[in-house]
Amino acid sequence: MREVFQQELREVQERLVEISTLVADSIEKATHAFNESDVSLAETVIEDDDRIDALAAELDELAITILARQQPVARDLRIVVSALRISASLERMGDMAEHIAQLARYRFPEKVVPKGLRSTFREMGALDVEIARKLTELLATQEPDVAEHIRNEDDKVDALHLAVFDKVLGETWKGETVDTVDATLASRYHERFADHAVSISKKVLYLQTGDWVPAES
Amino acid sequence: MREVFQQELREVQERLVEISTLVADSIEKATHAFNESDVSLAETVIEDDDRIDALAAELDELAITILARQQPVARDLRIVVSALRISASLERMGDMAEHIAQLARYRFPEKVVPKGLRSTFREMGALDVEIARKLTELLATQEPDVAEHIRNEDDKVDALHLAVFDKVLGETWKGETVDTVDATLASRYHERFADHAVSISKKVLYLQTGDWVPAES
Repeated sequence: MREVFQQELREVQERLVEISTLVADSIEKATHAFNESDVSLAETVIEDDDRIDALAAELDELAITILARQQPVARDLRIVVSALRISASLERMGDMAEHIAQLARYRFPEKVVPKGLRSTFREMGALDVEIARKLTELLATQEPDVAEHIRNEDDKVDALHLAVFDKVLGETWKGETVDTVDATLASRYHERFADHAVSISKKVLYLQTGDWVPAES
Repeated sequence: MREVFQQELREVQERLVEISTLVADSIEKATHAFNESDVSLAETVIEDDDRIDALAAELDELAITILARQQPVARDLRIVVSALRISASLERMGDMAEHIAQLARYRFPEKVVPKGLRSTFREMGALDVEIARKLTELLATQEPDVAEHIRNEDDKVDALHLAVFDKVLGETWKGETVDTVDATLASRYHERFADHAVSISKKVLYLQTGDWVPAES
């Protein structure tokens, strides 16, 4: 039974890595679509989000089946419960990528990124992509250094998020109202995407250290 | 054992009702602080959010203990897993109330709600409060009509959310950039608050109907 359980845990882990890979692909396409006003790429991201949702739901079913069949306790139980939470966060990361793509699509053929913020959003987008790739690596390897790296990159995203507001509320801002709305929403989505990755990192680290992490921290 | 389990489930339910009550109090104070620029009330909401987080974390611990001790299967197992998900959503609703309160605090002593949107935000705030109160009722009674009511009220929140953007992007908008940023963020927080309530409603209904609901729908 123990061996079956270990195999099922590996299956859970592989599926988390698979979903995380799709989320990383999705944010890479979404931020490219956003920065380059590529509407057909934006539509791909929006369509592909259903697949992420479906895979997350399937993983939840697998986790619940494992709980029912294997009746794990102690650390094993927390690993399975963590997988349920990680899947929910990955699903939300996919939603953030979709929202960024939707912004690009709504404004097309206009550019969605306001002048004066192009380089900031390019930088935020690149950080989100890197964070998602590192998250996939973390889920595959459980390497604490990778979690640390994700936290550091998230600090940079938070700083850029504040920089967007400084820019928009500064005296030199020449954007129209629509630019202000887009910048506000886009910055929030980029920031939340990275937050979810940090939240997942903490849960993965727990599996190493035994420190249980509340659901949303 | 079965009797102990039923008693533990009642304990879980009572705690969900308790947290939901605090979330409803929090959104009531937050929307009041936001609409009336009441900075001390806003600070109360921000301080009280720690209590919601702590209670949600304690509930998660209880749910995990029940999984370990009672080893529930089938519907019983899904009830406990649902409680974990509901607790995470309640915790996020508390965060949205906190974010609304933070907006009120940041802008103080200026009014945070832009002219021309006062009545819209009052209406959204009242709907969020009503949704939170109904959610508490739903968690206590599992009455399907209450879930239906929450869904209908959420449709109204979504319509008002769109109305905020119509207003801000319309020709008569005279707001400063800071007003546009505040309106965009505040509207998003009000809308997400209601979304989480609908998400919880679906999970509660599942317990009645047996239709399992994926994590984030």
